[in-house]
Amino acid sequence: MTTYKNKSKRRAKAPAKAIKKNTDKAKPPFRIIPLGGMKEIGKNCTLIECCGEILIIDCGFAFPEYEMFGIDVVIPDFTYIKENRERVKGLIITHGHEDHIGAIPYLLQEVSVPIYASPLAMGLIDHKLEENYLTGETHVIKPGDRFNVGCFTVEAIQTNHSIADALAYSIKFPGGHVVHTGDFKIDYSPLDGRVIDLNRFSQLGDQGVDVLLCDSTNVMRKGYTPSEAVVRRSIDEIFDNTDRRIIIATFASNVHRIKYFIEASMKHNRRIAVSGRSMENVLALSKSLGYLDDIPESVFINVNEAKNYADSKITIITTGSQGEPMSALTRMAYDNHKAIKLKKNDVVVFSSSPIPGNEKVISQVVNRLYEKEVDVVLASAMDVHVSGHASSEELKLIHTLLRPKYFVPAHGEYRHLVEHARLSQSLGQSKDNIFILGNGDALEVCGNRTHVERSYTSGEDVMVDGYDIGDVGSVVLKDRKKLSQSGLITISVALDQATGSLMAEPILNTRGFVFVEEHMDLIREAINVVYNTIGKSTSAGALDEASLSRAIKSDMKSFIYSTTKKNPMIIPVILYV
Amino acid sequence: MTTYKNKSKRRAKAPAKAIKKNTDKAKPPFRIIPLGGMKEIGKNCTLIECCGEILIIDCGFAFPEYEMFGIDVVIPDFTYIKENRERVKGLIITHGHEDHIGAIPYLLQEVSVPIYASPLAMGLIDHKLEENYLTGETHVIKPGDRFNVGCFTVEAIQTNHSIADALAYSIKFPGGHVVHTGDFKIDYSPLDGRVIDLNRFSQLGDQGVDVLLCDSTNVMRKGYTPSEAVVRRSIDEIFDNTDRRIIIATFASNVHRIKYFIEASMKHNRRIAVSGRSMENVLALSKSLGYLDDIPESVFINVNEAKNYADSKITIITTGSQGEPMSALTRMAYDNHKAIKLKKNDVVVFSSSPIPGNEKVISQVVNRLYEKEVDVVLASAMDVHVSGHASSEELKLIHTLLRPKYFVPAHGEYRHLVEHARLSQSLGQSKDNIFILGNGDALEVCGNRTHVERSYTSGEDVMVDGYDIGDVGSVVLKDRKKLSQSGLITISVALDQATGSLMAEPILNTRGFVFVEEHMDLIREAINVVYNTIGKSTSAGALDEASLSRAIKSDMKSFIYSTTKKNPMIIPVILYV
Repeated sequence: MTTYKNKSKRRAKAPAKAIKKNTDKAKPPFRIIPLGGMKEIGKNCTLIECCGEILIIDCGFAFPEYEMFGIDVVIPDFTYIKENRERVKGLIITHGHEDHIGAIPYLLQEVSVPIYASPLAMGLIDHKLEENYLTGETHVIKPGDRFNVGCFTVEAIQTNHSIADALAYSIKFPGGHVVHTGDFKIDYSPLDGRVIDLNRFSQLGDQGVDVLLCDSTNVMRKGYTPSEAVVRRSIDEIFDNTDRRIIIATFASNVHRIKYFIEASMKHNRRIAVSGRSMENVLALSKSLGYLDDIPESVFINVNEAKNYADSKITIITTGSQGEPMSALTRMAYDNHKAIKLKKNDVVVFSSSPIPGNEKVISQVVNRLYEKEVDVVLASAMDVHVSGHASSEELKLIHTLLRPKYFVPAHGEYRHLVEHARLSQSLGQSKDNIFILGNGDALEVCGNRTHVERSYTSGEDVMVDGYDIGDVGSVVLKDRKKLSQSGLITISVALDQATGSLMAEPILNTRGFVFVEEHMDLIREAINVVYNTIGKSTSAGALDEASLSRAIKSDMKSFIYSTTKKNPMIIPVILYV
Repeated sequence: MTTYKNKSKRRAKAPAKAIKKNTDKAKPPFRIIPLGGMKEIGKNCTLIECCGEILIIDCGFAFPEYEMFGIDVVIPDFTYIKENRERVKGLIITHGHEDHIGAIPYLLQEVSVPIYASPLAMGLIDHKLEENYLTGETHVIKPGDRFNVGCFTVEAIQTNHSIADALAYSIKFPGGHVVHTGDFKIDYSPLDGRVIDLNRFSQLGDQGVDVLLCDSTNVMRKGYTPSEAVVRRSIDEIFDNTDRRIIIATFASNVHRIKYFIEASMKHNRRIAVSGRSMENVLALSKSLGYLDDIPESVFINVNEAKNYADSKITIITTGSQGEPMSALTRMAYDNHKAIKLKKNDVVVFSSSPIPGNEKVISQVVNRLYEKEVDVVLASAMDVHVSGHASSEELKLIHTLLRPKYFVPAHGEYRHLVEHARLSQSLGQSKDNIFILGNGDALEVCGNRTHVERSYTSGEDVMVDGYDIGDVGSVVLKDRKKLSQSGLITISVALDQATGSLMAEPILNTRGFVFVEEHMDLIREAINVVYNTIGKSTSAGALDEASLSRAIKSDMKSFIYSTTKKNPMIIPVILYV
């Protein structure tokens, strides 16, 4: 049952002239249903539902959390989409990062839906679809484009972010007007010159916005996020002051920054070699999209040719800024890179900051680089990286321009959503008009009335484990954890069906438990424990498989813990012959 | 073979008057051998060897690195100490943190050695020895104490650190004079008023220091580490401005800071409840050492009584500042704490900063606290924590006071050691007189000659895995990793010894692989694969166990990967009956 709470108050500070008073009582209700991206950073996916039609915004995956052993990625639960597949009219994409597009192949395996995305995002999506032998209806859109998806009139708005072609969306439909910022920052001097379209945000604010969904990632950072121009200055400083080989690691999708590395290299007559699969893919894509049209092809060389150039004449742009074990930079650091051997006084720039959780592996790579007497430039010492997300003062600007009736903080851990709610309140937004949603919750709006239906549908994590999607099960994960701690012991015995007597020597196998060659005595004693248990059980008449299994397990567990202080998994197998 | 390189140059900038010229050619040689703590932060342990006698400085453990699945702790390799046990004269402890005392029980199980430590450190060591049913000769020492350990004259020097009673050591012996700073910072206004004894450092510098071993942890931080007085001001601000319940999490061993929390509470007529085993232990120890003599016992209440006090009249001091899963604060956050139920507007202060690697679990706890509508105060937003390690300008002061002939950067990852070497060079130290050592390396000094013997003894990590010390083996760790990713399948078959024919249905067991109830078809097909393999092998005459095992493993691996895209461990067991 859905009940509507009356919420007729508008924001006190909103200038009366600018807001179209909502007197249309006949407006149909609409729902906003996040399936992912709330109370987490990752797997962004939000639905807007009106007049029986559904629009999806973004479809990303998340990387597995700590203790999700063996899980490849985590995707949103698409149950609601599957159950309402004929009502889904389209998927609009804010930008091409994995937490916004990564789950598209999983979605398309379930439902067919037209996709709308900017050129770079669509290029990355196409690549994913090809890899998964999928096809779909796709539409490339640009800032300023306005298009209809079912009853939704969608307008793409230029923003700035750490990937090219990031968009916000204005979405108008019979029930109201929603603005979704996507991930953004306000950069007055972005490298491509395309500043976030603040004028359009201002106009939309004047027209009246019912609900704002806004990036919360950096809400806890005070002030403003610095411009990419800061990175340009630091890169210039590095290029101006060294005649050594320069190796720069950054996120492959930061096309404009990479383009600037190329331009800086050209200014210093350096050729550019690119290493790392994702970097090569994105670069090829950028070329095909015309983003590198003013770069002559001749400046690029194959990474295998790099050794033929003087140190002062070469720049290597590479993956690995997060210390990823198989990435090009990590392979260089550990001498496993086929083409590039690092040498003393090479300059290695990390144009990146650690994604939480990666600190330790990055440290390991940095220490290896120091051992190679490489000059390491980190963002903690020099401004070679800036964030792509708006800090608190930028968020205040967006709120002030849009003056939404209702506010839903998005794209953040729970604390970010709460702090973003507080920021909005500090600007005069009524607490009653701010909704912190969880995945699967629905915010229902009908004119001036709102209602939040908690757990309207499933907002659960869906784990991808090989071809297994969603049914991994907590027992499986618990077992993996236990196995990772002390390994296992299998005890296989063959018994006579009739008499229960042993038909062969019990076989004891271990994996991940102890270094067996050093513990032959332990293994021998453990086999004796099995003999004893079977002897005891047989003489007590406990011949059924379940009781014997239990006895073997229990006796072995006690023996092993008392002798080793470890708790391996114990797997008895009884074959009756 | 040991050869000595002539290194007669002294530091150019050292004032001539201050340095006693070393003309004593008859001085015996000495060695400095770090067994742990070099190129890592953890398991500090360094030997000084002269005239056939060995002095040990610190004996700590390290927490297991990423991918050391199931390992409890990592300790130094004591082989060299064991092989020379009769020459080991004593163990001196700089302070009571685990990376300096944690491996003492493991050492004492191998060799008997007198221990010298400050009151708090010794209290913590005693507790460890009791827990392990160990006894040993122990000597409590205080700043200014001078004592002989074999041929070594050791002097304890007051420093400041994030634990009470931290000491540096001046160690004089026939071969020379070594100063070891231990972990330190320079705090002109520490909470206990005991400022690092800079005058003594200055005097020692005047007397001449042959080798300085110095903390490198914060060498990459510019400027000065703030004083604990900064924390005091922030704590005052919190207490002055709230009448809510205050819950403060910090490191149990930071006794002076905890004492200040108690004093601030008393000033505001708050009673103090303490939660968390290590916090309770250290507090009891601090009381017994007289560190809390001016605190009346009546201000402490049992944590179970906390609910009987008004919010404005209670402070709870707790463990859990690193998000440790079983700690008191984490239990509060997840509603698993028996005595404390968190409620809206409780103030929870993290008087700590994340130890690298703990960022994600701390975030999880902080998000849970936000969900409880608790006011969370983090060191990133307010100065409720300062580091215990000297930043670069403080290090420069110590180098300048001591003017050592030779310098060995200590207590740091490789990059920290390198940056500390550079800092020393920037002050005029000759590069030839700086030695970056690895664990197990030996720096040999004989008057003006030095030689580094790389891998003089084992500096390997020794892993503690239950009662297993050191022989865990890389295969075991690899197996644990593999098991953690996709679990395992065991295939048990009973065959007739003579004919090789099956005597029972093969049994297939899985753990940590798939949620079996959802994959009964897969399991059935897998059993068919076993039948096929055995049929094929038997008809081909391949009856020996090894070949049959290989065939079962190989066929099952292909089948499982092609159907699930997973690579569980496959364990065939063949019983011949």
